[in-house]
This record gives sequence, C-alpha cells and structure tokens, in this order.
Amino acid sequence: MWAPSAGRVELDRPGRGRAPLVRGDGGWWTAEQDLPPGSDYAFVVDGEGPFPDPRSAWQPAGVHGPSRVVDHDAFAWTDAGWQPPPLAGGAIYELHVGTFTPEGTFDAAIARLPDLVDLGVTHVEVMPVAAFPGVHGWGYDGVAPFAVHAPYGGPDGLKRLVDACHARGLAVLLDVVYNHLGPDGNYLGKFGPYFTDRYRTPWGQAVNLDGPGSDEVRRYVIDDALGWLRDYHVDGLRLDAVHALFDLSARHLLQELSSEVAALEARLGRHLTLVAESDQNDPRLLRPSEAGGFGLPAQWSDDLHHALHAALTGERTGYYEDFGRLEHVARALEATFVYAGDYSLHRDRRHGQPPTGLPGWRFVACLQNHDQVGNRARGDRIGHGLSPDRLKVGAALLLGGPFTPLLFQGEEWAASAPFPYFCDHQDAALAQAVRDGRRREFAAFGWRPEEIPDPQDPATFRAARLDWAERAREPHASVLDWYRALLRLRRERPDLRDGRPGATRARFDEAAGWLVVERPETTLAVNLGAAIARVPLGRGEARVVLSSREEGVEVGDEGVVLPPHTATFLV
Amino acid sequence: MWAPSAGRVELDRPGRGRAPLVRGDGGWWTAEQDLPPGSDYAFVVDGEGPFPDPRSAWQPAGVHGPSRVVDHDAFAWTDAGWQPPPLAGGAIYELHVGTFTPEGTFDAAIARLPDLVDLGVTHVEVMPVAAFPGVHGWGYDGVAPFAVHAPYGGPDGLKRLVDACHARGLAVLLDVVYNHLGPDGNYLGKFGPYFTDRYRTPWGQAVNLDGPGSDEVRRYVIDDALGWLRDYHVDGLRLDAVHALFDLSARHLLQELSSEVAALEARLGRHLTLVAESDQNDPRLLRPSEAGGFGLPAQWSDDLHHALHAALTGERTGYYEDFGRLEHVARALEATFVYAGDYSLHRDRRHGQPPTGLPGWRFVACLQNHDQVGNRARGDRIGHGLSPDRLKVGAALLLGGPFTPLLFQGEEWAASAPFPYFCDHQDAALAQAVRDGRRREFAAFGWRPEEIPDPQDPATFRAARLDWAERAREPHASVLDWYRALLRLRRERPDLRDGRPGATRARFDEAAGWLVVERPETTLAVNLGAAIARVPLGRGEARVVLSSREEGVEVGDEGVVLPPHTATFLV
Repeated sequence: MWAPSAGRVELDRPGRGRAPLVRGDGGWWTAEQDLPPGSDYAFVVDGEGPFPDPRSAWQPAGVHGPSRVVDHDAFAWTDAGWQPPPLAGGAIYELHVGTFTPEGTFDAAIARLPDLVDLGVTHVEVMPVAAFPGVHGWGYDGVAPFAVHAPYGGPDGLKRLVDACHARGLAVLLDVVYNHLGPDGNYLGKFGPYFTDRYRTPWGQAVNLDGPGSDEVRRYVIDDALGWLRDYHVDGLRLDAVHALFDLSARHLLQELSSEVAALEARLGRHLTLVAESDQNDPRLLRPSEAGGFGLPAQWSDDLHHALHAALTGERTGYYEDFGRLEHVARALEATFVYAGDYSLHRDRRHGQPPTGLPGWRFVACLQNHDQVGNRARGDRIGHGLSPDRLKVGAALLLGGPFTPLLFQGEEWAASAPFPYFCDHQDAALAQAVRDGRRREFAAFGWRPEEIPDPQDPATFRAARLDWAERAREPHASVLDWYRALLRLRRERPDLRDGRPGATRARFDEAAGWLVVERPETTLAVNLGAAIARVPLGRGEARVVLSSREEGVEVGDEGVVLPPHTATFLV
Repeated sequence: MWAPSAGRVELDRPGRGRAPLVRGDGGWWTAEQDLPPGSDYAFVVDGEGPFPDPRSAWQPAGVHGPSRVVDHDAFAWTDAGWQPPPLAGGAIYELHVGTFTPEGTFDAAIARLPDLVDLGVTHVEVMPVAAFPGVHGWGYDGVAPFAVHAPYGGPDGLKRLVDACHARGLAVLLDVVYNHLGPDGNYLGKFGPYFTDRYRTPWGQAVNLDGPGSDEVRRYVIDDALGWLRDYHVDGLRLDAVHALFDLSARHLLQELSSEVAALEARLGRHLTLVAESDQNDPRLLRPSEAGGFGLPAQWSDDLHHALHAALTGERTGYYEDFGRLEHVARALEATFVYAGDYSLHRDRRHGQPPTGLPGWRFVACLQNHDQVGNRARGDRIGHGLSPDRLKVGAALLLGGPFTPLLFQGEEWAASAPFPYFCDHQDAALAQAVRDGRRREFAAFGWRPEEIPDPQDPATFRAARLDWAERAREPHASVLDWYRALLRLRRERPDLRDGRPGATRARFDEAAGWLVVERPETTLAVNLGAAIARVPLGRGEARVVLSSREEGVEVGDEGVVLPPHTATFLV
C-alpha cells in the first residue's frame, strides 16, 4: 500500500484488531501477516481511519466499508483461446448494468446477450462498474477504481458477464474514469498526492498526473487499466473524458497507457483496444507516439451526432447552435470533424484540427449515448420527439456511414424509457447539492425546478429501466426490424464498413431536404424534407437493396423519388 | 478595439471629451475620428474607466495613464538589407536595460555595444520591455504587452537600440511574457475574456488560450509577437515560461505562432527566430508541427546549468538536489537532458523525454541567467562564492560545449553586482505582499527576513547596476580575458560549434574530480578536484591551445597533468 507521507500505517481487520505495516522503499508499506482471499481489511493512516484500500477489488459493504481480498486466479474462465472481433467494422452496444434489466445485475444482463447477438452488434460497452456510493447511479462518481460495484454483482459477477459475452462472440469494452473521483467515499487523499488543484475539472478535483508524487499516481491509473484487461478478460477500455486528464509532462499519460496496453497485448496474446472519449476534435490522440501522438486506437467523435440531432429535431439550443444544416451532416460523414480549425459559435473560438489520413472506424459515432440522452433536462431520447420514420432516417445515416457506430441500450427499438440523471448519494447535503445543481443548470433553458426529475428519487432511476416487453408492440417492433436490417446490410456489404479517407462522399440540397451518401459501391439517399424529393443519383442503373419504406420509392433514369422521412439504400 | 461583451464603448481624449465608438463584427469597435500620431487616448467601457488601450504601443504617463498613438512608419531605420547571424553557432548576451548602465535606458545601452562586439557575442537578448508599473523592475510583471516601458526610452528608444545593434552586426532577441500579466495596471479583463481560472500559474491569472473567446486572445498574443519582429526589427523572441501557456485545444498556440512567424519571415525576407523558455525537458517544442511538435527553432535547457552549478559550488538545496556529480555534467553535455524520462527527486516524478536527433544549438544553455541569479535569496552570482579559477572552469564547460551559450550581463567579468529581485509597485498593499512573499519563500531555506533584500527598496535595484569600471581591476580583468578567449576559440574552431548528436563525448573520474569533453577535433580537460589530476587523453599527440592557467599543465604520453581548478583545451 502506497502512503508516501504517512508516519504510521496499520492494517485493520474487523473484529481482529490492528497490526502495523512496515515501511519500504518509495512510500510503499507491507503487511507481514497473510490475508487469505475473502478477508476483510482496511487501513489506518497516522491514526485516521480505517479507510478502504485504494486498490481494493471489492467493497462488499459499500465504499465506506472494509475492502475484501479477491483471488483473481480462482475464477473458472471458459474463454480459452478467445480473440475479440476487431473494432474496425464492428458495432458497439452501450449498456448500463443497473437499468439494462429489471434486476440491474451482471447476471441478469447475461440473459439478454442473445438479443444483442440477434441485433448484430459486435462489442458490448459497459458503463462504469467501479464502486460508487449508494446502490444505483450512472457510475461516473466512482471512488474505488479497482473495485467492482457490489450491487451489480461484484468482481465475480463482472467476470461471469465477460465470460458469457465471449461465449457468444461478443467483445467487451469497459468504461473507466480516470479524470476525477466522486465526492463521497473518496479517501485517496488520505494516502497520497492523488489530486492536484493546479487544474480544474467540472466534476471534482483533477487527478495529479504531472505534479510531485505523480509517478505512483500514474502507475495507479495504468495498473487499474491493465487489471481490467488482464484479470477480468475485458477486451478494451473506453476512457472517459480524456480532455480532462491534465498532464503537461513530456510524456502524456495516454502515450504511456497505450504503450503499456500494447505490451500487455503481446504478453497475453489477445487483442486489446483503447477508445478515448474526447470533445477536442484532436487527431493527436490517434497519431502514433513517434509522431507526437498518444497512440490510441480509436476515439469518440461528437460531430456526426450533433449534426444528425440538429438536422432531425430542429433543436438549436446549447451546442446544437453550431449545427443544423445538411451541410454539417455531409461534412461530418465526409471529413469526420465538422469543426477542424473552424470557428465554433458555441465555443466562441476555433475548434479542432483535420483528422487527415485517419480512417473512419477509428472514430466512434452515435445517434444516442448515455450522455446525449441523459444530459438533457428530462433524459428524453431523440426518438421521444420524432416520428419513427424520421428516427429511421437518422439510424440509416449512422449505420450507413464510415464510423464505428455505437447504439445506446434500447435505441434499437426506440425504447420508451428515458435515461435521466440519477444517483443515490447517502450524504443529505451532497444529495441536495446535486439536486439543486441540476435544477440550476436547466433553469438557463427555461425549465422550472419541478419539471426536472429529482436525481435522488428512486422513481427517476426506475424510469430508466428498459421495458423489454414493449419490443413486441409498434412502433418499437418496426424500429427494431430496421436496426437489425441496417446492421445486417452493414455485415453483408463490406463497402459500408470502408472507412478510408475518400470512401464517403455526400451531396445534398439544403432547400429540398435531401442528402445522398455515396459509399464505394452503395448509395444511401435520404429525404429529410416535408415534401416528396426527386434525388439525382450519380451512378447509372440503380436498384433498391433496403428502404425504410417501400410505397412511393421509385427509381428512374433521373434518380430516385423519395417520400418524406425516408432512407433508401441503392446499388 | 475588441470588447465583445461591452454594450457601449467611448474614446476618451484627455481634455477633449469623449466620443462613442461604433460596434462592428466580432466584438470590434471603431472610432470614427482620426487620431494623429502623438495623440493621447483611452477607452471607457460601459461607463467604467478610462482605461488604456490593450494594444497601446506607448504609455508615456505609466500603465494607468492614457495611451499614445505611435506611427511605426516614422522611424528612420538605417539597417536596410540587415540579416542577423544564425542562432546556430552564435552566443547570446542577456541584458536588463534598467541595470545594464547607470542611466538604465536604451540609449545608454547603445554606448556599451562595442564592448559586446569585443567580447564576441552575436545576439543581444533584452529582458522584457513591455510597460510595467513603477519605474524599475525585472519586467515580468508587464501589463501593456504592446507598449515599450517609457522610463527605458519608449518605442523610439527601443528602435534606436535595435538599429544600433544591427549596425554593429548584433542580432536582437526580445524577451516576451505571454503566460500571465502583472497584478497592477492590468485592465485587460475590462475589455474581454483575456483570462481563465481553468488553469493556475504561480504568477497570476492564466491567459485564456482555449476557452470561449480565445480566438481573439490568441490573435492578441500573436499580433504582439509579430509586431516586435515587424515594427521594431527585432530578430527573434524569447518566449517566457511556455510551460505556463495552458492550451489544450487541438492546435497549440505555439504551433500557430511558429507557423505565423515563418510566414512573416518569408514576407519580410529577413531571418526570424523563436526561443522558448521551458522547464519540461520536452523535445515536442522543437519537433515540426507535422510530427506533432510546436515547430520552435530553439528552447532553453536548464540541466547543464544545474549540473554545473551543483558540481562547482557543492550546493544541494532546492532543485540542485537532482544534480551534483560529474556524471550529471557529462550527461548534460552528451545528451542535453540529464532527466529524459528519469526519476527526479526534486520533482518527485519522472521528468522529460530524450531529445533524440536534435542538435545542441537548438538548446540555449548558461552558467548564469537572470533567474538563476535573481531567484536566489540575495541575488548573488555564482562567481560570488567561487574562486576565479573555479569559475573559469565553469565558463570553459559552457563555451566548450555543444549548446548555444547565453551569458548574463556582467558574467564576463565576474561582476560584483548581484541581481536581486526588485520591483517598484505603487500599490502599498501589493508592495508589502511581494516583500512578505519573498521573505516567506526563503524562510524555508533558513534565511531570516532581514537578510532578504527588500524588493521595493531602491537600494536593492541600485545594487544590481553593473559597475563597468571594475573590469579594469583583478580578478575581473582576468575573467574577462578568459571569456573573450573562450569565445574567440569557439569562433576559430568550428568543431566547438558542432552540436550534432554524437559530436560531444564526456569521460570523468568522480573521485579524482576530472572530466574530459571530447569534441570532434578539440579536447577540453578540466580538473574540478582539490588535487593535481593526471587525465588520460583518448587521442594521440596533443598540444594545448588554451588554458585557464599555464603553470603546472603538462602534456605527456599518458595524458595531461592539470593543477586543481584548471580548464585546458587541447588539439
């Protein structure tokens, strides 16, 4: 255990008293007694505590309670020889364990995996599982980065889920948060210089990645990342908000992390990947380390989402003020970043750099994700305000494009469940602060306090649970059919998975409301307007291979006639 | 004038009343009346003020007073066709206008230029001249970045100095500060979002380089930089503490600046350069933009200084705890960065990255500079505690090495003047805060308050003035001869200016205290020990071409015998 400034550290075993640890090199302390798997323990630092182990793998009694020893070698894996499908050409399904099923556990999620296979996705992205205070929450306020949230099923539950995914051919990406820790149950500061006030994040103290003592803090982050990949057989990590990993040292944490993950991949003989969430439109993340980059395989890109959302809904508030024209959709599809050094009204500055030469699959794009849904005042999904026909056009533009698509749980059937922000803080003052902050944030958009779901109310959490039964009813059933068909087309037609620069061209008529996406061998024509559109096609003969509606779609010499709110694939 | 959030802006002309400005695009305001050169003016923003122009070129009545219009075309330049010598192979002389001469003006400095030519330096680096509060100060608390400090001689005075330097073949580098502004007279915040609290600098609010409104702030910085190069004929800029230019956008300010300076160079047809001060040991600053770098021609590097200082003086406090062995001196000479990914005790983290492939001339090294001298408790120079013989060894290791050497004014004759921190704040509370802060800082090193020179006491400033007359007396005269001889040898022997990787090899005997620096054709042997050293030479026959002392130096078959505190060049 690392506590560089401590003068005295004791191991506390509930009911068994305390024993001093021995100080070794570099601020590391060692216990002389053996702790068999299953033992509960905590640490007392200079008389304060007991506090849970910063590297605890399990907090069975919550984030304030003792840690429990986990033997990672004891799990009976059945995935020998497993290799995940590559992210390139794949499709990601983002799920939140607590609301994906009524039970909200890893084991309940396992029972739903056949539905995901049937849908046609290749990667399951699990929202953060690191232990956080209370029972339910989004998971971004985790405080025990190495521990698996006990109400979800703890370490063994996660292993069972990963093993079951692998058994069905699904790769697993795990969402990990290294830019801050939550406010409640965060005892790291008692042990060492984990935090810095040199930088500010919107969510809490910034992690100390470049100040005094930061070598061990970086090691802590990297060991955490490697642990999920090694001990839990996870296939890749989704790194939360890397633009808030403040590191101005000569070797950025992400350079070091990507290099260590590459070394682990070689050692395990199993493909591993990293996907960064970043809102910076900065291709440096994906450039190799030798070219000054961070060497990450892939990153999220918001611009297609924003362009689609604004074009489909007509919304122009917040960051959607930078989008809204078909030109933005076309540019996102062709060039990934709509803002690549261009002036952004919302940011009131130039934004981004062109991702020259980087293929589309290295960018994860979506029409919904937990943030884009959940950070709305009431957590309403894009489908809640759109006709199913119009929603289908959005899905076609996502899945017909060159990026690695990400679907958010329930998106595939236009789920009626919202995904509002919810939490379960045990500290009353903190709970009230979160409630008030949420109301204040949306007051700026004209919402009254009583219109904002109370994040602490269990009903808010319950509302987010998926209702799997509704899939059998319209319009959900037809939306689900459409998503399945789109993913099938994407599997059957490799040119739709071609993300090479130049493999996507888009033409549009802003006034008429149509847009044509030309992939190497397939053409996607969509009509977002309110009138019938006559869409000229660049190629000669054409036949429809998939269409969101059939009646009214006519292919002729001059192009294709599309009814309003229609998406049609032609070859 | 840029004031994006203002509702009303007026031009205030002392004694002539006020007139409204007209709002144009992008938050820019225009005066309809003509302001002939020499006019005094200020701005009133939403009824507050008058405040000086953020882009004022002259503050004749101080930083709180009105701005004065300067006609840059009116100066009678005599440097037509001027091209500066390259930094590669050159030698820099850093001077502080206020203390370089008794008068403390640009014009008085002109009278001393023949001494610098005689010394053998090629570049004059002028410490900051941007207007700061009061009469005298170091200049890093400037608040009018475009204005030339009036007590030094104002804009025309600086132009006369630059013109005179060029007439004598000396290039001019100007020290500019873009990481913060001083606390007193800083009105920029009244005009626009120049600052951010997202990052912290040790000296004041960080400049807003990546937040809302930052495009114009970046433009402000870049226009300032280009203005010195264009309007004042300066040959290059020394960028203060670039590690505090916080910019996490996709295109770092320094990338943009280096690209714009390159474009200006092409337009002016005159060589321009940029030298960054950075303590990050980060070669990214010098890598080309295409390789993810900032594209800067050169940067300061502290490691040779620290290694030499610790080895010569035996000091181990503060950052010198990371240095002290001959091994560190040797590694700095061979590899530039002693810390290139290695653990630094002082920083308590790994530090730096190897500057692979970058030639030595792109790193500016020194034995003294304003910071290394002035940030000591009493501003004592290294020569104040060393014998002249030992000091000469330090000079030989600097000037015999592969880097671009920088000398600090008076260093060449072991000036008796210290360079303590001094300022002239007019605000009593601020003055006291600076005084107290200084005392607190050094209390940690055991200094009593009364032992720290009072930065506000004019006597502290006066003590820093060079006494040019002492050069005629020993030991100053012999030190000056040695510096002249070293710079002459460096001019005459091109191999000493060879900074290519591999062009410098160093061997040493830690116990005996000798060190040998092998340049392509010249060998520098030094004895830092207290006893006579027998130094083996790697080459065959050898003869002495320059030695800090002659008696006792003997070249034989087995090498060279050196008395204590001796530096000898052999070929």
